[in-house]
Amino acid sequence: MKPHKSMSNAFCPVARTVDLIGDRWSLLIVRDAFDGMRRFGDFQRSLGMAKNILSDRLHKLVEAGILDRQDASDGTAYQEYVLTPQGERLFPLVVALRQWGEAHLFAPGEPHSVLIDKQTGKPVPPLVLTAKDGSSLSAFDAEVRKVTE
Amino acid sequence: MKPHKSMSNAFCPVARTVDLIGDRWSLLIVRDAFDGMRRFGDFQRSLGMAKNILSDRLHKLVEAGILDRQDASDGTAYQEYVLTPQGERLFPLVVALRQWGEAHLFAPGEPHSVLIDKQTGKPVPPLVLTAKDGSSLSAFDAEVRKVTE
Repeated sequence: MKPHKSMSNAFCPVARTVDLIGDRWSLLIVRDAFDGMRRFGDFQRSLGMAKNILSDRLHKLVEAGILDRQDASDGTAYQEYVLTPQGERLFPLVVALRQWGEAHLFAPGEPHSVLIDKQTGKPVPPLVLTAKDGSSLSAFDAEVRKVTE
Repeated sequence: MKPHKSMSNAFCPVARTVDLIGDRWSLLIVRDAFDGMRRFGDFQRSLGMAKNILSDRLHKLVEAGILDRQDASDGTAYQEYVLTPQGERLFPLVVALRQWGEAHLFAPGEPHSVLIDKQTGKPVPPLVLTAKDGSSLSAFDAEVRKVTE
């Protein structure tokens, strides 16, 4: 964790998460892990990133408890990187990145990958923050209660 | 947009969003904008970042249609940066960053800011991806249908 510039950032969960995984490579490695990718070489081919940077990011994601390093599932000598339960809880984050991109960064009709509900075979519905009564909550319906010292 | 290393990344909405705002500063500027911050000097004080980098990021966020540059609401000569409707749709992303951090990056009892439902005064419930029938969808219930050429 980098030192925070202001006290309010020290108490901000958004800032802590961003400090840990708020960079292009970490986010794309997590995305690939959700798609079932497990091996160094597969991440490397998917992301086209330098091996030393990939190695550094995988190490940090293991340190952060997001990925677990395991022996290969097929008995070979490979190491595999698998999402931990804590890592799996990043699912809404990856879905939020995906759905905003789908809505705003593709031209109408431009092809893109789609997240499918396996049970229905249909695209998953938009991620919506809901109140306890089930109504949807927008940014205007919510406010941050800050911690001050 | 940086060039993509593989065809599958070119069709991936996660990758496009990450290429646009998947960096520490952009994400924290968006967070501050959701907290009602509007002015260069306020962002600068909140984030403690170099002015030229802040200027670059604000410019990119305006170019991306996430922030809109407006004259100051109080009639002074200041410029203000306000979330566009497209920017406001990043709310689930910021909530996802917040809730994962709350759950995994704070010790029990460690103080942190909290996102409150204004109507109830209580913390907002966890963000959950739900199927059309209202049941919750985990990463295991969904899969990415890739575009291949």
